Amino acid sequence: MAHYQHILLAVDLTEESNAIAEKAVALSQQTGAKLSIVHVIEPINFAYGGDIPMDLTAIQDQLDEHARQKLIAFAQPYLIPSEQQHIVIGLPQNEIHRIAEEQDVDLIVVGSHGRRGLSLLLGSTANGVLHGAKCDVLAVRVG
Amino acid sequence: MAHYQHILLAVDLTEESNAIAEKAVALSQQTGAKLSIVHVIEPINFAYGGDIPMDLTAIQDQLDEHARQKLIAFAQPYLIPSEQQHIVIGLPQNEIHRIAEEQDVDLIVVGSHGRRGLSLLLGSTANGVLHGAKCDVLAVRVG
Repeated sequence: MAHYQHILLAVDLTEESNAIAEKAVALSQQTGAKLSIVHVIEPINFAYGGDIPMDLTAIQDQLDEHARQKLIAFAQPYLIPSEQQHIVIGLPQNEIHRIAEEQDVDLIVVGSHGRRGLSLLLGSTANGVLHGAKCDVLAVRVG
Repeated sequence: MAHYQHILLAVDLTEESNAIAEKAVALSQQTGAKLSIVHVIEPINFAYGGDIPMDLTAIQDQLDEHARQKLIAFAQPYLIPSEQQHIVIGLPQNEIHRIAEEQDVDLIVVGSHGRRGLSLLLGSTANGVLHGAKCDVLAVRVG
């Protein structure tokens, strides 16, 4: 049966995240599932390869705090309580899988952009989440 | 909103198809969506590379007819009317996308086995369906 118990909404907090959130919220209402949200912050040295000879800690802290505030504001209209809001740092698919397992999630909702740009080479986040997920995955088409 | 209008259930008619079908049926009931089903038959010469010097038409016809009967029997308990049952021959992801577009589908439901065996090299059907789909895709975890 599709009576999901716990839905995990994974968002990158771009402008497309609202369209994805609305589907997750509607599904959680239709199935009576609890709704949690996760935003994964990618470490700044992933983006810059770690070969810059400077301490990025302060910048990383600022980015983390910014993301934290943004997630709180994002989750508010959807009435997702703070204990169901997760901010984690790492590789998106790994962290999404980890939170999903920790929280006994049975459906992950993630945005899907289709094949374009870098995802042609690297695979999209939706793709990464699909591989290795221990539960169902709903890829919501955006963009 | 997640009020899907038309759900397309893609099945390979293996024993895992029932678990996937039950989720699709429950979702269609919860969202009030119409439910269609598609089964893609892979041409026998895809499997054998076309380098066997014999006419496989009769065997292909037999396989097709067998699949047709199997789909009718499969769809029956889910009350999917015959005009919403699609049997097509080709590459699964291509045919699933084609039927989804033709039939104005807004959610494709497909089984996902995760990374194992050949799908490590070739990518799974769920993966193929996710790439290039013009609508949402729900990958139901099986096996």
